[in-house]
Amino acid sequence: MHLVKGGFTLADPPSVGIIGGGQLGKMLSQEAKRMSLKVVILDPDPNCPASKVCDELIVSDFKNDKSIKLLASKSDLLTYEIELTNSAVLMDLKTRNYKIYPSPQTLYIIQNKYRQKSFMKKNKIPVANFTIINSEEDLIRGSKTYGLPVILKACEDGYDGKGNYFINSLDQIHDAYKYFAGRQCMLERFVEFEKEISIMVARNGSGQIESFPVAENFHKQGILNRTIVPARVSNNITRKATKIACEVMRAFKTTGIFGIEMFVTADEKVILNEIAPRPHNSGHYTIEASSVSQFEQHLRAVLDLPLCKPELLSPATMYNVLGPNEFQGSYALTGLTTLLSIPGVKLHLYGKMVTKPRRKLGHITAVANSLIQSMQRAELANRSLKIIQAN
Amino acid sequence: MHLVKGGFTLADPPSVGIIGGGQLGKMLSQEAKRMSLKVVILDPDPNCPASKVCDELIVSDFKNDKSIKLLASKSDLLTYEIELTNSAVLMDLKTRNYKIYPSPQTLYIIQNKYRQKSFMKKNKIPVANFTIINSEEDLIRGSKTYGLPVILKACEDGYDGKGNYFINSLDQIHDAYKYFAGRQCMLERFVEFEKEISIMVARNGSGQIESFPVAENFHKQGILNRTIVPARVSNNITRKATKIACEVMRAFKTTGIFGIEMFVTADEKVILNEIAPRPHNSGHYTIEASSVSQFEQHLRAVLDLPLCKPELLSPATMYNVLGPNEFQGSYALTGLTTLLSIPGVKLHLYGKMVTKPRRKLGHITAVANSLIQSMQRAELANRSLKIIQAN
Repeated sequence: MHLVKGGFTLADPPSVGIIGGGQLGKMLSQEAKRMSLKVVILDPDPNCPASKVCDELIVSDFKNDKSIKLLASKSDLLTYEIELTNSAVLMDLKTRNYKIYPSPQTLYIIQNKYRQKSFMKKNKIPVANFTIINSEEDLIRGSKTYGLPVILKACEDGYDGKGNYFINSLDQIHDAYKYFAGRQCMLERFVEFEKEISIMVARNGSGQIESFPVAENFHKQGILNRTIVPARVSNNITRKATKIACEVMRAFKTTGIFGIEMFVTADEKVILNEIAPRPHNSGHYTIEASSVSQFEQHLRAVLDLPLCKPELLSPATMYNVLGPNEFQGSYALTGLTTLLSIPGVKLHLYGKMVTKPRRKLGHITAVANSLIQSMQRAELANRSLKIIQAN
Repeated sequence: MHLVKGGFTLADPPSVGIIGGGQLGKMLSQEAKRMSLKVVILDPDPNCPASKVCDELIVSDFKNDKSIKLLASKSDLLTYEIELTNSAVLMDLKTRNYKIYPSPQTLYIIQNKYRQKSFMKKNKIPVANFTIINSEEDLIRGSKTYGLPVILKACEDGYDGKGNYFINSLDQIHDAYKYFAGRQCMLERFVEFEKEISIMVARNGSGQIESFPVAENFHKQGILNRTIVPARVSNNITRKATKIACEVMRAFKTTGIFGIEMFVTADEKVILNEIAPRPHNSGHYTIEASSVSQFEQHLRAVLDLPLCKPELLSPATMYNVLGPNEFQGSYALTGLTTLLSIPGVKLHLYGKMVTKPRRKLGHITAVANSLIQSMQRAELANRSLKIIQAN
């Protein structure tokens, strides 16, 4: 990169290295290309979603030491769209003055749910009660202390509900413990929530923090199904949730955009659930409905440019397009004619070559003058779209 | 392309061939990649703006017979972002059942300003008086009939004001005539306009026509400088302008998005100025401020998908970022820190490697709650951005 004060040369623009070329990497890349930044992606799949919209693709496992170093050598800064990378290599690179955002230390804390929750608790951010589980006895004791249901969680490598085991009765304990044999686990009290909400929040290198509106989320089988914005919550909850999101960023003192998932209880408590140190599925609506998208905000953060105060241009509803349970392999989409007839609807297809049950293949965002109308438009669009087997 | 009814297979998506990989080709490609369509570009510059966001680039002159045919062979349909292509080759391909949108016949009419205006007049669309010029005597006679000032125009290969000669006094006639020696010319009465406006309008293969809001344009030295939306015009003018835009599409009976430039006079007449058979600079605001962008609308049209009824999400102001007059060659941008601090502002950089005087290097769009605020934000952003020489 040929940097000039407050800008760059177009012949040699800043080069952003991204670990992961899935949908988040693709949408990050698309935003980067709008400003003609250079994008280098590392992903094991040569046909990954970002492959067609980046400048260069390094085909490699996410955790490969040499490949991550190669990516770093080609980039002015490194970022990642997945938590499942090699934080040790990133820490090593950081000690050698490579720019890595969010910091490998932050990734190290977040990669392990027990470390994550302990760090949050230490920073006085409200979380559900939790404890480490080293034996089946620990699990029995914890379940009795918290009262059922409880959630047994693998501390590492879980996502989209994978790695969570709901224990509803004491006779499930043995199976649950065996299910995670050999993996570090923690037990968490189940929060009786009224709503699941999330906030995208960014911090740049200069310490500026900007948060997006509160989004309301609906999960199905552990995977996000629908997001509506703005969330239908009181001002009190909006204030509490925004405060928590900003406190998380102040606690980590790091750079980038984070997705902060929270629970809202009937008595208006807001409790932190999970943190994603990257753009997040529940922030996709920002592409159409916000004056700045989560992807641009992340790029601004990691390039240490000013963050934008997001302005909501329109209420929005987002549905994930998920692979059906019935088959895997090649697929076709139908129903486009109906879907595209609905005003205010945008279809994002990630270009994944094969489907798998509940794989994220794309998403639909509907904007409208009212939240209700955006929900109706998105629901109709979502019902129109069919994923069928193709040869 | 492996078509299925109302959709397509993701392993073999529709392939869009685009003649021209400039900023319009780039933005078209970006929209196509959002839906994971395939994009093949033909452009003489291997580093053209679209080069980094398309699937394949054919490096060739725009008019090269063989290259256009190669592009056609790789594409399910052809479209173009420039009028300066080879309409004869396209006509030949069309007779061999290749899909080319807008039709080569339409391009042939529009490529020549005299043919364009004659076609409009025949279709009862209001245009300024005009006449063909075959001699200096014709020019003298015409100038006297219309009254000064008049505009002498090269019928072909003009753009951004190039190819127009303003005649303000009779003693300029000899120079003007000599200026276009060897080129077919027409003379046009000068319209004393109050405002320049434009409308983006699309028609798909099924005959559906949808128009965007009226935009108000400000030119400097023949090049678009600023667009504001919605235009500050009466309902009467909005109605007339929209009617003209839709009538143009009905007259051509072709497929694609068109930019329809018009003049508004003090007595509320609306007169057609020029037609661009493609996405248009004055429609860039649609990326941020409309529920469907001009680029997506064009893709929907050429893929014969339903068009979207555009909904304006926010007032918007767009400034072109033009190369300064002082130098050409490598350049850097500065002032990004200030520009990006202004809320509601998006910067598009086309990634052109070298600047030339008044070359289109990018654009800035500002959205806001009010038109006035969007104008203030965009103006501040435009003033902040500086283009400086780089090594």
